[in-house]
Amino acid sequence: MSVLIKDVQLDGRTTSIYVEGNRIAAIGEKARTEADIVIDGKAKAAVPGFVNTHTHAAMALLRSYADDLPLQTWLEKAIWPREAKIEPEDIYWGTKLACLEMIKGGTTCFNDMYFHMDQAARAVKEMGLRAVLSEGFIDMRDPDLGQQLLKKQQSVLRKIEGVGTDRVRAALGPHAIYTVSKESLLAMKDLSDKKGYLVHVHLGETRREVEDCVTEQGMRPAKYLDSIGFLSHQVLAAHGCWLEAEEVDLLARHGVKVSHCPTSNMKLAAGRAMPLKALLEAGVLVSLGTDGPASNNNLDMLESMKFAALLQKFASDDATVAPAAQVFEMATLGGARALGVDAGLIEEGRLADIALVDLRRPEMTPAHDLTSLLVYSAHGNVVDTVICDGQVLMKGRKVPGEAEIVRKAAEAGRELVSRE
Amino acid sequence: MSVLIKDVQLDGRTTSIYVEGNRIAAIGEKARTEADIVIDGKAKAAVPGFVNTHTHAAMALLRSYADDLPLQTWLEKAIWPREAKIEPEDIYWGTKLACLEMIKGGTTCFNDMYFHMDQAARAVKEMGLRAVLSEGFIDMRDPDLGQQLLKKQQSVLRKIEGVGTDRVRAALGPHAIYTVSKESLLAMKDLSDKKGYLVHVHLGETRREVEDCVTEQGMRPAKYLDSIGFLSHQVLAAHGCWLEAEEVDLLARHGVKVSHCPTSNMKLAAGRAMPLKALLEAGVLVSLGTDGPASNNNLDMLESMKFAALLQKFASDDATVAPAAQVFEMATLGGARALGVDAGLIEEGRLADIALVDLRRPEMTPAHDLTSLLVYSAHGNVVDTVICDGQVLMKGRKVPGEAEIVRKAAEAGRELVSRE
Repeated sequence: MSVLIKDVQLDGRTTSIYVEGNRIAAIGEKARTEADIVIDGKAKAAVPGFVNTHTHAAMALLRSYADDLPLQTWLEKAIWPREAKIEPEDIYWGTKLACLEMIKGGTTCFNDMYFHMDQAARAVKEMGLRAVLSEGFIDMRDPDLGQQLLKKQQSVLRKIEGVGTDRVRAALGPHAIYTVSKESLLAMKDLSDKKGYLVHVHLGETRREVEDCVTEQGMRPAKYLDSIGFLSHQVLAAHGCWLEAEEVDLLARHGVKVSHCPTSNMKLAAGRAMPLKALLEAGVLVSLGTDGPASNNNLDMLESMKFAALLQKFASDDATVAPAAQVFEMATLGGARALGVDAGLIEEGRLADIALVDLRRPEMTPAHDLTSLLVYSAHGNVVDTVICDGQVLMKGRKVPGEAEIVRKAAEAGRELVSRE
Repeated sequence: MSVLIKDVQLDGRTTSIYVEGNRIAAIGEKARTEADIVIDGKAKAAVPGFVNTHTHAAMALLRSYADDLPLQTWLEKAIWPREAKIEPEDIYWGTKLACLEMIKGGTTCFNDMYFHMDQAARAVKEMGLRAVLSEGFIDMRDPDLGQQLLKKQQSVLRKIEGVGTDRVRAALGPHAIYTVSKESLLAMKDLSDKKGYLVHVHLGETRREVEDCVTEQGMRPAKYLDSIGFLSHQVLAAHGCWLEAEEVDLLARHGVKVSHCPTSNMKLAAGRAMPLKALLEAGVLVSLGTDGPASNNNLDMLESMKFAALLQKFASDDATVAPAAQVFEMATLGGARALGVDAGLIEEGRLADIALVDLRRPEMTPAHDLTSLLVYSAHGNVVDTVICDGQVLMKGRKVPGEAEIVRKAAEAGRELVSRE
């Protein structure tokens, strides 16, 4: 199977991109002139597909269900009671809906933590995206419960792996230090060391998390995780709003990756912006996440790029912080590196995860600087065509089966919030 | 001329909206069943057209030209040198582009300050929007220069008024206290009192503005404007990031309106969020602006609603601040009231400024709460149809003449930044 994108803008020049199988085989004069699928790239720019490194995709079903609440109230009164009623089929339709939304916004890969993740794996496989999936692990800091849940976690790992596509990878999902016992955290770390699993965890999201940790452990969250031997280069920590200098150093030393989720942090009033500048200066790999669509409330990585750039400027009182090119790299190559996926750049040999952006829209005019337009002017809907793993998932903004997914997910959402 | 919108969602029920001339004539059973134009409202919701109360529309030509710079550098090194080269025809095409973008995002009315505003008036008239237009007035605090410019200002007022449509209104545009002499400010106030003109001014945007005012006048900006007798209910002040309690009281007492521009304030690192809660508690009418598309960089009021809600939550450390319904009202009825336009609500007798939103999109699913979806999930591109002053400006996301406007504005933008 081959795809040829003709006459497309790439890094400021007009060229062709030739895809063979799931890789970019040639760019420019070396590109073949025929292919199984030929796409007219005129008035379009090719950019790497976006990589969303922190979300809870199926929470799309709870989008717009409960907003403008404090984090704890939102969780305890609105989200958790509904999540307690979630059925596997809900996860399937919620993830389908989220994948559809991601494709329509140029996202080709995401790092997801939620429940019934075998159903998510099924949805992702069908939708054609790339994803790293972890079953959210919460033992309420009860090591005995943790033992039982670890067995369940391993069974889900096998089911995810059993879905049978290289696009879907299983990972470990210890939720956070305040919901997972030390014993379970270490069991996951051990499994990660042995089998190479990514460990997806929330870290330093709220003031309360920090305060409770200091009270109980006598140290801040990252230091606590270091003290028990949990940190490694396999760990991807989401949020990091409250990281202090000493914690930044610990994350850098262990090669921990951080996912910045500015939109969610602002919406839920996390109280502080992730220290981007300090993390980058320390050499930490920072990528970008939307967080779940109930706390954002969308999965639009272009919007999240703007929130990242603007929050960092605002919080540091400096308009030069988080320039467009830096944020764009966080959302593409940074995410790909964080998840160990050989994408994030359009170059020969890389995985063919590509978005084509429509340049003839009013908000993309004039074209003084494409990166600036994508970060500051555009939203996901400027994406016209999406290719993931060499497969064309969207063309002319049309995704096969879209209407049915929207209808079924709308039903599932209605049913979920009214379930007794 | 009549328009019938059939089977549309309005405030949670399915109904019909009948427009006769430029007003909403009937809703529900009283609506006629035939009209000159019949629009199928199925799977769409009707909302008031958005009102953008602070922008510099033609700056669209400088979108993506210079970003990630401190405000003064951005103005002095990038924007002002280019603005010095702006030709009247640039303003025409820049405003056409901005109007096109606004229509595509459901905005039906805007408050604009820039240069060569007779050209802006021509563009707005053609595009079918409603606008309040003011020639930006900057005498560099030289009262003699002010005298000359006032004559020019009055000539532009007459030209704007001469454009001959009720949709376009002229206003006065004294730029800010640091660029306009006291004498000119008072001359404008006088003209406003006599002729009823709105006075569009920047106020309390940057720390430097406040510091300089305190140094030179011994008081903060709003207090200074009060001390010279400038404040009135005809004044619309943009930004207000640095307003202190005493200033909020002064604005409330005089009935000054405030336009919140959260996206621009974050992008240019204004240093502080406008005190929304204090302003609302004092009874100040607060509306929403995008600011110009070179400092935002778009004109998407749905995005600005999200930035407003999230910035206010983040800055006040409270997720319950600026709930969706409040921000939605700022962007619709608040703006209409601020500009003295009888729109902002869909009810019988009001001006027919209406946007129809497509409900079958993934980011609009599930529909637990329409206002939440519009504020937190959606962008302007969910708008399918726009009616302004009873005229259908966009249907099925198509605006007549779109391709030519994008092409001409792209040319004008390229030419502007390369002009010697």
